[in-house]
Amino acid sequence: MRRDNNLKNDLIIRTLLGEQTERTPVWMMRQAGRYLPEYIALRNKYSFFERCQTPELACEITLQPVDIVGVDAAILFSDILVVPQAMGMEVQLIEKQGPLLPEPIKTAADLNRIYSAGAAGNLEYVYDAIRMIKKELDGRVPLIGFAGAPWTLLCYMVQGKGSKTFDEAKGFCYQNPKLAHQLLQMITDVTIEYLKGQIAAGADMLQVFDSWGGLLNKQDFETFSLQYIRQIVAAIKDEVPTIVFAKGAWSSLGEMAATGAHGLGIDWCIEAQQARQFAGDKITLQGNYDPARLLAPVEEIQQTTEAMLRAFGPGRHIANLGHGILPNVPVAHAKAFVDTVKAFRHA
Amino acid sequence: MRRDNNLKNDLIIRTLLGEQTERTPVWMMRQAGRYLPEYIALRNKYSFFERCQTPELACEITLQPVDIVGVDAAILFSDILVVPQAMGMEVQLIEKQGPLLPEPIKTAADLNRIYSAGAAGNLEYVYDAIRMIKKELDGRVPLIGFAGAPWTLLCYMVQGKGSKTFDEAKGFCYQNPKLAHQLLQMITDVTIEYLKGQIAAGADMLQVFDSWGGLLNKQDFETFSLQYIRQIVAAIKDEVPTIVFAKGAWSSLGEMAATGAHGLGIDWCIEAQQARQFAGDKITLQGNYDPARLLAPVEEIQQTTEAMLRAFGPGRHIANLGHGILPNVPVAHAKAFVDTVKAFRHA
Repeated sequence: MRRDNNLKNDLIIRTLLGEQTERTPVWMMRQAGRYLPEYIALRNKYSFFERCQTPELACEITLQPVDIVGVDAAILFSDILVVPQAMGMEVQLIEKQGPLLPEPIKTAADLNRIYSAGAAGNLEYVYDAIRMIKKELDGRVPLIGFAGAPWTLLCYMVQGKGSKTFDEAKGFCYQNPKLAHQLLQMITDVTIEYLKGQIAAGADMLQVFDSWGGLLNKQDFETFSLQYIRQIVAAIKDEVPTIVFAKGAWSSLGEMAATGAHGLGIDWCIEAQQARQFAGDKITLQGNYDPARLLAPVEEIQQTTEAMLRAFGPGRHIANLGHGILPNVPVAHAKAFVDTVKAFRHA
Repeated sequence: MRRDNNLKNDLIIRTLLGEQTERTPVWMMRQAGRYLPEYIALRNKYSFFERCQTPELACEITLQPVDIVGVDAAILFSDILVVPQAMGMEVQLIEKQGPLLPEPIKTAADLNRIYSAGAAGNLEYVYDAIRMIKKELDGRVPLIGFAGAPWTLLCYMVQGKGSKTFDEAKGFCYQNPKLAHQLLQMITDVTIEYLKGQIAAGADMLQVFDSWGGLLNKQDFETFSLQYIRQIVAAIKDEVPTIVFAKGAWSSLGEMAATGAHGLGIDWCIEAQQARQFAGDKITLQGNYDPARLLAPVEEIQQTTEAMLRAFGPGRHIANLGHGILPNVPVAHAKAFVDTVKAFRHA
């Protein structure tokens, strides 16, 4: 396991490795994003991919929440869809409309339009950004790298855009299981190489996001998602601490824990105690504050954040939201969440 | 408990009451809908509310799946948003775009624009449709009446349109709990009167749909949803068998069972055995085939449907999808699901 000895705050790393810590570490999914006026200012000047692909901009955005909100980890500013893009697909990210992949994968012929060999090499700009961020952070907090899980990427690559249910993507898998597995394996291969590139560039830990894992029943989650996540975790877990977050896939927490990941993300629809029971006590849990609850008055945020901390108990817990922070959350409310975690001590 | 002695097929009623049956009954959520060419023909001629509000049309549409697919129950063709409409809100249902409520509830003043007293009287066209359907059915299968749960209706009434996360609706509740509870109680009062009207008109059983219950954490589900569902179930459960379906709210199955409902709907993201463990063995479970799985080849539909039936075991189970049938499902696939259930006998 590689550890950056220059880290002044390594709470999150120690928590993931099951070591004792003075307090619970905290960060927020999408913490570098649209609720921050400083981010909006850059968004108004540069397109999404300009921000992603210009290391200086990605670096500046990544550091904003560390400086402004005081979180215990930075997370690389990027998007999970840079992987399909690197594999040769056109990806558009239109503000307020979500992603659009104008030529989605529907047939075997479509698979021939994309490639896995060498695709991770197209993501050099990410590795550059990571090197720059690590330098700028200068050990203040660890840097989290990430990638989308193959199933979630397939959802976008087949459906071509966001969806509540991703029926077309699911229909594709049920009608063409062979093609689906071919595509999932291609994504997996690129993702492993990509994450190894992030580690080589300096990422201190990694998170795999399976945002749409919860759309599958337990058996389909194993078939179309978990077996690929398992390959990814196996390839990186001995190098840096690794978190798997499959939103909504509560019924497979035990199986996800068995991948050897160091942490599991959970959403607010499962209670801490229940999640612990499913996941077992040898893994760190990350979550699970309802992002919409940050719209409540500050005093209530403080109370409900403390209630969450008590529910998880001391150790083996990283405080986070159960999903990305909402764009309309006041910065003071985000700060109230972070400050409450940082001030809290278990009795 | 009122029972229609004229029913030739009362499998679903007996299953809900925990009585023995020859086989598992089956119906499909949204079975009267867009996958049926006969429905599309009427949709192309009449607007949504013409279809809803003209008893002859609602009757014809309600009977289509009984005749064409051979399900064991008819469900009233209507929409949960007729209740906000009856309370004085403008509701638009635009094909392929979903619902739009152009003047959503945001303030106390907005609440004064709507009313509960007498609102159920505006739904006389539903009672007329039920009377006509019961006559046309002539006891072939039972008729299911329904309403939306107060929480799900609040989601639309506050957000003003569909949403993946209903953040505005949740924010409204967290910022204005008093207003939210006032609105939820108004909806509850109307819903109870409305469902009693459906019973008086001849509905053999009722289902309460909480499509967005799964967006809340367990405590918020109790606060903003379940306490109102409890009132509704208490008011009707001694008159006709009652099913509660709160999609995604698996962690409150035990509490929902304790309302005294006869059945609980479950989605495909929970396994039969786990649901049974949470709900206890004194209640009927309904579900939980993944609607997207109906896009698979017929042979696979047959195999996975049988696997579902075996997982639930004999008795106390109504076969259904875990959510509404998708518009692009071939009728032959829907029929394969229904026929497989009807042919299956537990060993």
